[in-house]
Amino acid sequence: MLKQWRSLLSRNLSSKTLLSGKWGDARVALCPHGFEPRAAFSTSIHDFSATGNSSANARLFAPYKIYKGKAALSVDPILPTFSKINSGTGGLRVDRCGVIMLTFCPAIAERKYDWEKCQKFALSPTEVGSLISMSAHGASEFYHDPSMKSSNAGQVSKKLSIKALDGGNSYMISLTVTNNILKSTERLNVPVTTAEFAVLKTACSFALPHIIGWDRLTNQLPKGIEGSPSKVNPKQHFDLEWDR
Amino acid sequence: MLKQWRSLLSRNLSSKTLLSGKWGDARVALCPHGFEPRAAFSTSIHDFSATGNSSANARLFAPYKIYKGKAALSVDPILPTFSKINSGTGGLRVDRCGVIMLTFCPAIAERKYDWEKCQKFALSPTEVGSLISMSAHGASEFYHDPSMKSSNAGQVSKKLSIKALDGGNSYMISLTVTNNILKSTERLNVPVTTAEFAVLKTACSFALPHIIGWDRLTNQLPKGIEGSPSKVNPKQHFDLEWDR
Amino acid sequence: MLKQWRSLLSRNLSSKTLLSGKWGDARVALCPHGFEPRAAFSTSIHDFSATGNSSANARLFAPYKIYKGKAALSVDPILPTFSKINSGTGGLRVDRCGVIMLTFCPAIAERKYDWEKCQKFALSPTEVGSLISMSAHGASEFYHDPSMKSSNAGQVSKKLSIKALDGGNSYMISLTVTNNILKSTERLNVPVTTAEFAVLKTACSFALPHIIGWDRLTNQLPKGIEGSPSKVNPKQHFDLEWDR
Amino acid sequence: MLKQWRSLLSRNLSSKTLLSGKWGDARVALCPHGFEPRAAFSTSIHDFSATGNSSANARLFAPYKIYKGKAALSVDPILPTFSKINSGTGGLRVDRCGVIMLTFCPAIAERKYDWEKCQKFALSPTEVGSLISMSAHGASEFYHDPSMKSSNAGQVSKKLSIKALDGGNSYMISLTVTNNILKSTERLNVPVTTAEFAVLKTACSFALPHIIGWDRLTNQLPKGIEGSPSKVNPKQHFDLEWDR
Repeated sequence: MLKQWRSLLSRNLSSKTLLSGKWGDARVALCPHGFEPRAAFSTSIHDFSATGNSSANARLFAPYKIYKGKAALSVDPILPTFSKINSGTGGLRVDRCGVIMLTFCPAIAERKYDWEKCQKFALSPTEVGSLISMSAHGASEFYHDPSMKSSNAGQVSKKLSIKALDGGNSYMISLTVTNNILKSTERLNVPVTTAEFAVLKTACSFALPHIIGWDRLTNQLPKGIEGSPSKVNPKQHFDLEWDR
Repeated sequence: MLKQWRSLLSRNLSSKTLLSGKWGDARVALCPHGFEPRAAFSTSIHDFSATGNSSANARLFAPYKIYKGKAALSVDPILPTFSKINSGTGGLRVDRCGVIMLTFCPAIAERKYDWEKCQKFALSPTEVGSLISMSAHGASEFYHDPSMKSSNAGQVSKKLSIKALDGGNSYMISLTVTNNILKSTERLNVPVTTAEFAVLKTACSFALPHIIGWDRLTNQLPKGIEGSPSKVNPKQHFDLEWDR
Repeated sequence: MLKQWRSLLSRNLSSKTLLSGKWGDARVALCPHGFEPRAAFSTSIHDFSATGNSSANARLFAPYKIYKGKAALSVDPILPTFSKINSGTGGLRVDRCGVIMLTFCPAIAERKYDWEKCQKFALSPTEVGSLISMSAHGASEFYHDPSMKSSNAGQVSKKLSIKALDGGNSYMISLTVTNNILKSTERLNVPVTTAEFAVLKTACSFALPHIIGWDRLTNQLPKGIEGSPSKVNPKQHFDLEWDR
Repeated sequence: MLKQWRSLLSRNLSSKTLLSGKWGDARVALCPHGFEPRAAFSTSIHDFSATGNSSANARLFAPYKIYKGKAALSVDPILPTFSKINSGTGGLRVDRCGVIMLTFCPAIAERKYDWEKCQKFALSPTEVGSLISMSAHGASEFYHDPSMKSSNAGQVSKKLSIKALDGGNSYMISLTVTNNILKSTERLNVPVTTAEFAVLKTACSFALPHIIGWDRLTNQLPKGIEGSPSKVNPKQHFDLEWDR
């Protein structure tokens, strides 16, 4: 089963189109998960240098790394960013979705890697879903254009391929970067053992709720409750499921 | 395997009946998971406007969205509410169960959706259990009456259908809303890829302990422990398993 | 596959025997997971009334409840208790293991339950492991003697049976309580749907690390680190894996 | 399927070699997951006595223990250590990877264990991946040299073997320690039930994101956000995926 994602590429949805809708003002989020432009996910990075925050948003470097003969693969979750919504409720919305960043670095000698020639590929939440649901006989391909919607669109294309080999006894993760201007193609292959792939699946399954922002929904002990719970208007809530 | 939930609808349990029982006063919770009235879950929403809390209960908007040709689906966990129990122990009980709220919005043009004509369907914890345990050949149907137990009961019925297609290579999630007064029927279909369904399963599995309130049980470092652990009366604890 | 746990009953291990060993003083914990006395888990309850703590250890009531025709089943995680270890390191050890408490209450009329005649059964971590690993064709039986190691041992025995029916399309959870003095036997049956069982599995899998105390191991941002990480003695750490 | 890890042993990668690369200074971490020296993981322990921290880093003892006839097995997660990175951003990097520490202690009489003759084996994240992905017919073997890269290398070798028996109805976990100087071999066998193995898998899957440090990535409510989210430069982020 080879999941083809090419069709997504040709149906990219303008973020502006999405934003032209109304969702109670609070529900409009720059985090589409369907026809989203592939390049959107390469813009989903915490901009720590810009915010200048020191401790609260301090960047943590805890990549899971797989070193192999021809390349090294580093896997790193990037959290979404949030912004306050306009109303005075103190609410937050996801501003930019998180991703799982894959970084491939070529080997230059035995067990030496050229960390300055690394290539990145940012897995969207749905692409992470494809990875963690992959069977022992499966394969996935994802296509990104890092310059999508800019004047450089189409100059470079990236293809990530994940293939199960030998009935799930090993996997091959390959990144192919094609530069249509330079007529060059670079391919970085990282063979992955079943054990390493299990770490990837488990860690990415753990990270998935975080990169879509759901981990913030964890119940906090309410400070405001003081004996008499606030009574809600049942009719009002019926409306929530049946509001037209 | 088509799980039929119709029988549940005809056996709805009065919340008052449940509350007439005694469970040490502290164990009575408005969060039934068995014969529960379907409409109960449309009343399980945080009423943020009513409480007026700003930061502690600030609403977070982090829906997972799937945009497709004829409709968009937004998936959003809603946490339970808690209330203090009467005794002076500082204990809390679940007041209203959480849900996974599904919101379907129809497309009005290519990649444009009418966010004001959305329909909602609130998945109870057990319905979430049905979703996350669905096999590659499974199907589930859920029926809700948003006006259940009010004078408008029976006027409107909602059916949510989730079906695996092509041996799990894709899924169809459909919401059918029937208005028996207006003799109208609206159907919103969202085809879902295996990858998107994997995100739904993983995110809903993550959210499930949260919407039933179990995430609050996380061990907190006890402030009170100061060297000598409090000794408990074994007999008293034997009684807990054997208390009659 | 019927897992027989009867053999465990006849091989109960004295806690005192366990405690007579030495594990660096800090590693002795009253939380055995192998031949453990079944009754040990009925003593694993937070004794909130004894400690008198109000907020830090406030009891939370968030049971997952399944209401059926002849009985209701309530499922509730109980966290372990911790105590400070003697050395001045501020370390903690698990004092009593957590459990998943099952409470069965008989129906007395349609949708009415006698909350004062409930029977409890405390699943140990390993019994939870048996539950969450049960296949669609599996069955498990657990035997507890709530008075084990007291003068009343053998008077009462409890058997919990969990059986998959119809290839996993439903499950039957039954508690049988036999009183050998009164020559009485009480049996409480709760049929469970696939969806409800999925909630049980997911919620118990979530709770398992908590009831064995591993959730406390979550990385906390270290306050003490100020630029230069403390250097450790490699030889000392080699010793940790090779200390004899 | 017997996964052979011997080949890893002969291809150990010098940490110095890894560090000679450049990864923006911040990305160099002493936590390799591929050809890593086995001994590295026996040096990954929190050195609490050295740091002298009392509460923040207080050691928690919550091992999951399996007591069997000839030996007891204790399973204990060890968190990674972090260090501040040099730049003034407040960032942290994983300094030493976490492990799952297995401790085998021999029985000296019925239900008595010699806690002073225990042998340890520290599972790396990838070895944990092998454990949690093991099928009902699988087997894994791991080889460690606790003195690797010291003058004592090769004197002692440890082999951990995990085998599914009887189609997954039970498992055998064995540690063999061979001392090539003393010409001695010690073997510690712990038979494990399906239920106990399910606890191991679930608890280790829970622990895996923690021992690679990803649990620190949990979204924290940003203190700094005050209405207007910081705008990022899209081009700059394009560069992140396409930076050469």
